[in-house]
Amino acid sequence: MKQALFKKLEEHYEEMVQIRRHLHQNPELSFKETKTAAYIADFYNRLGIDVKTGVGGNGVVARIKGGKPGKTIALRADFDALPIKEETGLPFSSNVPGVMHACGHDGHTALLLIIGKVLNEMREDLSGEYVLIHQHAEELAPGGAISMIKDGCLDGVDAIFGTHLWAEIPYGTISYRTGPFMAAADRFEIVIKGRGGHGAMPHKTKDAVAIGSQLVTNIQQIVSRRVNPAEPAVVTVSSFIAENAFNVIADTAKLQGTVRTFSEEVRDLIEQEMDAVVKGTCLANGGCGHEFNYYRGYPAVVNHKQETEFLAGLAADVPGVSNVEELEQQMGGEDFAYYLQHVKGTFFFTGAQPDDAETPYPHHHPKFDINEKSMLLGAKTLAMAAVEYQKQGLPKDESVAVS
Amino acid sequence: MKQALFKKLEEHYEEMVQIRRHLHQNPELSFKETKTAAYIADFYNRLGIDVKTGVGGNGVVARIKGGKPGKTIALRADFDALPIKEETGLPFSSNVPGVMHACGHDGHTALLLIIGKVLNEMREDLSGEYVLIHQHAEELAPGGAISMIKDGCLDGVDAIFGTHLWAEIPYGTISYRTGPFMAAADRFEIVIKGRGGHGAMPHKTKDAVAIGSQLVTNIQQIVSRRVNPAEPAVVTVSSFIAENAFNVIADTAKLQGTVRTFSEEVRDLIEQEMDAVVKGTCLANGGCGHEFNYYRGYPAVVNHKQETEFLAGLAADVPGVSNVEELEQQMGGEDFAYYLQHVKGTFFFTGAQPDDAETPYPHHHPKFDINEKSMLLGAKTLAMAAVEYQKQGLPKDESVAVS
Amino acid sequence: MKQALFKKLEEHYEEMVQIRRHLHQNPELSFKETKTAAYIADFYNRLGIDVKTGVGGNGVVARIKGGKPGKTIALRADFDALPIKEETGLPFSSNVPGVMHACGHDGHTALLLIIGKVLNEMREDLSGEYVLIHQHAEELAPGGAISMIKDGCLDGVDAIFGTHLWAEIPYGTISYRTGPFMAAADRFEIVIKGRGGHGAMPHKTKDAVAIGSQLVTNIQQIVSRRVNPAEPAVVTVSSFIAENAFNVIADTAKLQGTVRTFSEEVRDLIEQEMDAVVKGTCLANGGCGHEFNYYRGYPAVVNHKQETEFLAGLAADVPGVSNVEELEQQMGGEDFAYYLQHVKGTFFFTGAQPDDAETPYPHHHPKFDINEKSMLLGAKTLAMAAVEYQKQGLPKDESVAVS
Amino acid sequence: MKQALFKKLEEHYEEMVQIRRHLHQNPELSFKETKTAAYIADFYNRLGIDVKTGVGGNGVVARIKGGKPGKTIALRADFDALPIKEETGLPFSSNVPGVMHACGHDGHTALLLIIGKVLNEMREDLSGEYVLIHQHAEELAPGGAISMIKDGCLDGVDAIFGTHLWAEIPYGTISYRTGPFMAAADRFEIVIKGRGGHGAMPHKTKDAVAIGSQLVTNIQQIVSRRVNPAEPAVVTVSSFIAENAFNVIADTAKLQGTVRTFSEEVRDLIEQEMDAVVKGTCLANGGCGHEFNYYRGYPAVVNHKQETEFLAGLAADVPGVSNVEELEQQMGGEDFAYYLQHVKGTFFFTGAQPDDAETPYPHHHPKFDINEKSMLLGAKTLAMAAVEYQKQGLPKDESVAVS
Repeated sequence: MKQALFKKLEEHYEEMVQIRRHLHQNPELSFKETKTAAYIADFYNRLGIDVKTGVGGNGVVARIKGGKPGKTIALRADFDALPIKEETGLPFSSNVPGVMHACGHDGHTALLLIIGKVLNEMREDLSGEYVLIHQHAEELAPGGAISMIKDGCLDGVDAIFGTHLWAEIPYGTISYRTGPFMAAADRFEIVIKGRGGHGAMPHKTKDAVAIGSQLVTNIQQIVSRRVNPAEPAVVTVSSFIAENAFNVIADTAKLQGTVRTFSEEVRDLIEQEMDAVVKGTCLANGGCGHEFNYYRGYPAVVNHKQETEFLAGLAADVPGVSNVEELEQQMGGEDFAYYLQHVKGTFFFTGAQPDDAETPYPHHHPKFDINEKSMLLGAKTLAMAAVEYQKQGLPKDESVAVS
Repeated sequence: MKQALFKKLEEHYEEMVQIRRHLHQNPELSFKETKTAAYIADFYNRLGIDVKTGVGGNGVVARIKGGKPGKTIALRADFDALPIKEETGLPFSSNVPGVMHACGHDGHTALLLIIGKVLNEMREDLSGEYVLIHQHAEELAPGGAISMIKDGCLDGVDAIFGTHLWAEIPYGTISYRTGPFMAAADRFEIVIKGRGGHGAMPHKTKDAVAIGSQLVTNIQQIVSRRVNPAEPAVVTVSSFIAENAFNVIADTAKLQGTVRTFSEEVRDLIEQEMDAVVKGTCLANGGCGHEFNYYRGYPAVVNHKQETEFLAGLAADVPGVSNVEELEQQMGGEDFAYYLQHVKGTFFFTGAQPDDAETPYPHHHPKFDINEKSMLLGAKTLAMAAVEYQKQGLPKDESVAVS
Repeated sequence: MKQALFKKLEEHYEEMVQIRRHLHQNPELSFKETKTAAYIADFYNRLGIDVKTGVGGNGVVARIKGGKPGKTIALRADFDALPIKEETGLPFSSNVPGVMHACGHDGHTALLLIIGKVLNEMREDLSGEYVLIHQHAEELAPGGAISMIKDGCLDGVDAIFGTHLWAEIPYGTISYRTGPFMAAADRFEIVIKGRGGHGAMPHKTKDAVAIGSQLVTNIQQIVSRRVNPAEPAVVTVSSFIAENAFNVIADTAKLQGTVRTFSEEVRDLIEQEMDAVVKGTCLANGGCGHEFNYYRGYPAVVNHKQETEFLAGLAADVPGVSNVEELEQQMGGEDFAYYLQHVKGTFFFTGAQPDDAETPYPHHHPKFDINEKSMLLGAKTLAMAAVEYQKQGLPKDESVAVS
Repeated sequence: MKQALFKKLEEHYEEMVQIRRHLHQNPELSFKETKTAAYIADFYNRLGIDVKTGVGGNGVVARIKGGKPGKTIALRADFDALPIKEETGLPFSSNVPGVMHACGHDGHTALLLIIGKVLNEMREDLSGEYVLIHQHAEELAPGGAISMIKDGCLDGVDAIFGTHLWAEIPYGTISYRTGPFMAAADRFEIVIKGRGGHGAMPHKTKDAVAIGSQLVTNIQQIVSRRVNPAEPAVVTVSSFIAENAFNVIADTAKLQGTVRTFSEEVRDLIEQEMDAVVKGTCLANGGCGHEFNYYRGYPAVVNHKQETEFLAGLAADVPGVSNVEELEQQMGGEDFAYYLQHVKGTFFFTGAQPDDAETPYPHHHPKFDINEKSMLLGAKTLAMAAVEYQKQGLPKDESVAVS
């Protein structure tokens, strides 16, 4: 079965590449990806596969039923692009000015479509049911996952798997991690409302630049002193904006930034501590005014232990995979997190470093590119996981034997 | 003599007001004040007074010789306006969009022109010579004074006097101070050149917001720890600019601000200490890059003791002056400072708070206004100082008796 | 075999308790534990077990050869006490004023002695050889492990196991962790050499309190900004000493503290960054003088993957063990780390929370106590690991089956 | 009259030196100076001068009535010593271990006793009355002045004069200043009550060293941002005490220091702002506990304008005085301040730099010494001020003529 699956995926590799390049040329921004959604739906329709559009927005969900009873397994790929002006120089560069598939979602979509095609071809021999979730809007909070779930995309699903092609991991590597894997990614805004005035008369003012600077410095101690050192956490003030003539003391300073955490406990703690630092710093500086807004983004991606170990065990057997390794926690965020709050599953990285790139361009860079061959490895791993997971759920000892 | 002088100035008060209002309606920016210069020159020409234009730029200098030998006394008024959009609602508001006489230089010019007219009328009875310096570009470094001096406006001058109409001091008050009176006003720019990156991966970056905030905080200790507490000094960081997406660590932070001091020693010290703080803070933070530029503005206005006491003594006798008081050091700057580096003299404030303003709008405010009557008090004080100073220079004990 | 082992250990439990209480009453400080060493040696001598004293200092090593060929397995227990005045009120409280077994080493020694007794009794049926390492001086750097290893205690050893009775983990729990488990624990001293002076004349001084405070604050950013968030790390300034009359500016400030890390890379990075912060902060503050000394303590305890999984697998089968769980990284240090740099093995925690203690006193507290029953669980787990590990080393798949 | 006065003082210079050396050998600490008080009283008694002891403690007050009616003028000298171990090597070094006249009060007393002797000799020719205030306990708050005033030493007094021999000003110079001259000198204590714990577990603590360091840094901004730059002010944290083992996070940090100001307004402001900084910093750091105690020491010495100008005018005529100059504000404190809150007067410095000392030892140094000849200049200036002030109080213009 596995060998047949691998062989069929390999046979369709050329088509996978064509799809990816087509999507790459026609990127669409988050929540506006209507043509891409239509393209996906059309692909399934032409194959006679059951497909539903408009799921929770622009989401598209295809379902393939196997010939035998079994579990319902979901696979997910996202398909939105980014507001970045492409500078790759690729022959299939973006046709849309200022919009680019700079995160590999084109590849995700291509590989899932081909998985769908192959599973459909093999459906008679398969157990269970396969739900192919094409998700819009991964790049922009609140993301597409949350609304697609509300709209039923996980109904009846027993487990879910997903992968991200990752250009900074060598081709041939599958990277996994049990438990907290990718961080909750929150955003905050702070406004220091001091009192402006003449640069030569500080005593008549509440200097928002001086106060804001104290605040930024004090905030650093949340991670270094207030959070359990064993819990990875980041508090970054990304912007500090107070623009004034050289002889005018700042009335207002606007800060924003991001918080990354892996547990709700630490997330709550940091929000509380930030609030205390803002209030305390303002109290210490003439009781100046302030605003503090904390916006929760995607929660942490917390991979389920059994499914992760299952996937890691399988991956070593995928032809072309030369390395399966545990990855350290990633501070980046992903709305795949929401699926894992509802059903068991795991999210893993498929190494996608271009062959000739010693130092690959990072994701979201105007020159970002993937190694297209990685799509095939991602497809094989995901598809095998979906099919093999049918055997899971037996007593633990036996289940380990599967790998 | 004094009484005749006061009477003549009073007789011309209406004209003084008309001149001021005309200038107020026709403001010109620093170094571009050609029409104003022509207006001034025309005024003197029509009276047959010797006048020189184009002095050190747009400067205008009139000279009136008395009938008797004596000292040469200079009086100075500045005539440039500011890039501010007027919001006073006055019937004679600015006709030039975005340009406004928001610092009282219109009043300074009006009162000096009338002084010139009156001295000219009385010239037969006067000793010595009177140099009326109409200076352009006080508001913008390097200022007009420095080039007018180079162009000879102080040649042969024995002493100089000047006043600033000051809206935040009550009408009827003349404010003086011996020695350091107004601060040296310098400007600085600092650029922190860190290394930007993903907001979730601080260890791959050099966070310019965090580093810049440390810098701002550390700079505060220059005034509190490095400068003699008996020496007034201000270091203000007015701008902190680092604008980034919420999940991007700042590559660069741009700071600017001002330094105010009263002695060259402290001025040098602060520049050196700032340089050390910039270098040390960058060294402490991954050896990040930096730029530090320190631009010296006007030096401190240091009033000469004898001339200041002379002026303060005289002022109490000016009809309409109800209060003569010593003022604390002013952190604002003035390029009158340069004249006092060449000849003896003093610069004082003439109270110009509008009658109905409980809390007058500060200088450089879009709603700034003066009490026009203060022009008459300023004119009387200045003119009397010029005429009476002829008697100065005798042995010290006697000279005090003059007052 | 396992059942026989467990039964014999249970039969000797009373003796184990007696030994522990004897040791508890007679604690000795690190590097001075000569009587304890003699007590241990005497115990083995009386049983006719081969024992070597004076190993690397006060260390004692017993060796028991099984009747069949096999691997050589080491078990280690430490036996030094702490300079703490006991306040437990136990009937067998310390007889030595100011010295106390406040970390459970008395229990470690007792359980290892009884393991030795039991293995000796069963030696005919055992494969391989067992090395019982009684280590002195775990509490005080450089520790006893490093010199005992130099003195040959690990010669011929294939694997090592050790446990810590841990009062803050419930009785019945065995806690393990693969890879970095306990932190490298370093110490640092910083001296700020400013220039003292009169409290009213800061400009004539370099204020060591102000500079030291900047330093402490700046050091916080090493963990929050310079270290990979996925790598646990702690930098603590524990002492700040600058004692002066109220009107005297500090000449000198003395800081000390600790650094905790789990990788040599991060350890090196933090030492370098601290050096940069010290130098940069001093440069920024008048170029004041400084000393920075960084003393490396024990390295991180890095458990070997296979041995840890082996141990975790076994532990669930130990009678009395109700819970086997992975623990998060511990910021405390242990010189067991050195053994693991030479041979394979793992170090784990045996839950030792007293039955009636809702909130147990932490280790090193004057009221610290252990649940004595935990000694039996620790002994069973360790002894079984030693015996069962004889079967390890087969192909990986089979070896897993062992558990 | 003046010439007679100067001559008599000169004639008694040798005795003045002897008295000073006797006192130098027999120093007594503040509030314990009973033998010195008896010595002073005995001196006056032997001359038949009216003297009162036990004034407000150890204070001694002599009164000399002139032969003609006039004003009552007080002169003040302090007579306590310091807890310093003398290291001058002078032949008349302190006989009392650990106690030393290291501030010149021995000289003050000697010169005032001789003034008393001379005024007594000349009393028939003098107008008015002379009150010679020998004050105990200047060095230690609350000081002797406040209780001597309560006990009537200023009753009927019209004006008061005092001087401090100042080793850091050249011999021959008299230094004066109108208005605020010496600072109010306050003391504060701050205790940060965090929560101690293991150095590796900051999240379970509230780190008093980190919090205290933030506090010290934040406090610096009171002077740099909250106080009018034209008002000299100092806030010094002199002590930071938190002593712990290297692996223990501080539970408590104790800070103390001093505040120097020249106006009650700024003094109140700083106390308030410090309170806000303490509260705000603690709020920002886990709501940790704190104590803040602010102890007001002597208020600022504020010299009266007319008396200061009178004194400065006189001083130039004193034989031996080569320089009379205005001094900048001094951040040190003096309880002469209290006298000036009740009667008019002035406090000035008499240059007392030893002849051979290029860099004289500062006051309170174990090697401090004065130029004894300065006692004669101080005596002449003070005595002349007392006698000549009889002519004061006429219309202002005339009074200036006096000088």
